[in-house]
Amino acid sequence: MDRLIKVAVDAMGGDNAPAEIVKGAVEAVNESTKIKVILVGDEAAVKGELAKYSYDKERIEVVHASEIITNNEHPVEAVRKKKDASTVVAQKLVRTGDADAFVSAGSTGAVLVGGQLLIGKIKGVERAPLAPVIPTEKGVSLLIDCGANVDARPSHLVQFAKMGTIYMENVIGRKNPTVAIVNVGAEEEKGNQLVRDTMPLLKECKDINFIGSIEAREIPHGGADIIVCEAFTGNVILKLYEGVASTLLGRVKQTLKSSLKTKIGALFVKDALKNMAKEFDSSEYGGAPMLGLKGLVIKSHGSSKAKDIRICILKCIAFVENDVTGKISEHIKE
Amino acid sequence: MDRLIKVAVDAMGGDNAPAEIVKGAVEAVNESTKIKVILVGDEAAVKGELAKYSYDKERIEVVHASEIITNNEHPVEAVRKKKDASTVVAQKLVRTGDADAFVSAGSTGAVLVGGQLLIGKIKGVERAPLAPVIPTEKGVSLLIDCGANVDARPSHLVQFAKMGTIYMENVIGRKNPTVAIVNVGAEEEKGNQLVRDTMPLLKECKDINFIGSIEAREIPHGGADIIVCEAFTGNVILKLYEGVASTLLGRVKQTLKSSLKTKIGALFVKDALKNMAKEFDSSEYGGAPMLGLKGLVIKSHGSSKAKDIRICILKCIAFVENDVTGKISEHIKE
Repeated sequence: MDRLIKVAVDAMGGDNAPAEIVKGAVEAVNESTKIKVILVGDEAAVKGELAKYSYDKERIEVVHASEIITNNEHPVEAVRKKKDASTVVAQKLVRTGDADAFVSAGSTGAVLVGGQLLIGKIKGVERAPLAPVIPTEKGVSLLIDCGANVDARPSHLVQFAKMGTIYMENVIGRKNPTVAIVNVGAEEEKGNQLVRDTMPLLKECKDINFIGSIEAREIPHGGADIIVCEAFTGNVILKLYEGVASTLLGRVKQTLKSSLKTKIGALFVKDALKNMAKEFDSSEYGGAPMLGLKGLVIKSHGSSKAKDIRICILKCIAFVENDVTGKISEHIKE
Repeated sequence: MDRLIKVAVDAMGGDNAPAEIVKGAVEAVNESTKIKVILVGDEAAVKGELAKYSYDKERIEVVHASEIITNNEHPVEAVRKKKDASTVVAQKLVRTGDADAFVSAGSTGAVLVGGQLLIGKIKGVERAPLAPVIPTEKGVSLLIDCGANVDARPSHLVQFAKMGTIYMENVIGRKNPTVAIVNVGAEEEKGNQLVRDTMPLLKECKDINFIGSIEAREIPHGGADIIVCEAFTGNVILKLYEGVASTLLGRVKQTLKSSLKTKIGALFVKDALKNMAKEFDSSEYGGAPMLGLKGLVIKSHGSSKAKDIRICILKCIAFVENDVTGKISEHIKE
């Protein structure tokens, strides 16, 4: 590959912007010579942060944007009105071909809306899903869809399965990944109307490794590489994952402080437990790709630190080099 | 109350039947003089177990049933064909008024089907939900519906909210319990069609303490006393709860064994962590009531031990004494 892979980054998005975002961009550029980052946001603030680091000046560009879209704004209205918002300006760079990908830790709503309205879907893609990578006992799985596409149709879920397979193979590097659909039981006749209607379509689909239903209980055990569901269910799964994990880890912490005896024990086990908890923290796995668009969009979580942004930016290399957009376009037609 | 509260128990249901079921029945009868248990199942086997204990002979009766419905059978067919199955015979006792309630650790499908077909719904109840009590940081919440009623309508969810409120107040003893509907965001316009259509109906509902949407993340934190959702979502929540908890606790165990240092620490913290895990184990909270039927049905989990069966049987006292069936009948009409 001769040309640089250009990643537009919303420098103003997330709780730790712009400092951690800029730091992550510098780290990515220093780690891979294949990458060029375009930092979009308040020029003075971004340049102030950049001044702290040394890096290849040719491979970080700053594009000024005077506005910011927050989590409290209505995404559709905000994207339409705030033409000079960092997320809007950055996504337009992808649309015009000035960037290959877009990374943001800002408003999820604005990223989802912008992806559809500003970047646009690949021809033939009915809906563009958001697909976070979630931790499991066996590593990670892709949970597709967790976006804003509620009330999906069977054909949407089939496209999610195809796009998820292409992403998992080409970006995460999982060969012939398994695909399962979230259901309330393993028996064929179980499930709601959507699942029952989708099941035969997934079975017929030649370009995926479909293994049938998955009960939610099996997701944390790594029951399938790609977990297909409509977005309402996906959001419930993603958020309950976080909720149960944080509640349980909080309880463990409390328990370790509950008596003199446990406090002594805690001195011996604290570090190991902390590492374990970190491993199970979904934020460790970089962001969630929004698939099916004319360019990669990666949404990193709102509390992203430099390392999260760095991982998201570096993921764009495999995405572009393996031509995921081209592959999606090809498989969607079938 | 002069008369005994009669509870029909499926003596053959669950992994530990009949031994643990019979033991639980004896414990319940020995704990409360208000209770009479009718053990339904293989007479010889049940009487063999009963012979091990001393108890008030007037308050445990054995009714013979020659068949068993397993988890592997199709529930509708099994309930129709196996007229002498323990779960069928026991539920018929509720229908005829020979028992006030039915407790089973057997096939959930057979309990749900039998509840509808054999016991029957209270007049006006559109669907009978299964409502497990789940552990939270603040105690417990009622998750309603986790049954077999997929593709629910808004009016069903409103009835679930009312029935859940009555159960929580009268059986669990929570005063003026809060009700929330599972959603993907707190904003009013969010949610799928079902949630958006149900929301205004729940707001208008005078006999519940409705507090709006709840995101799945807040469920383990105890965000509401009664969590309303349709059964597909409910099943996903219930099973993911179990899956994430067991995965994480397994990881904690593994971590404690990972080095000499952690093994030493484990000696100090093991017991406290075990108690914590037990507290978070939903099986500790007794079974899941199936509401809206002409009599109480409580489904205990398949691996129930005597103490679980004991708790389920004792719960029937408050249910009958506080006339939950009468109250549901009254509130459903409104």
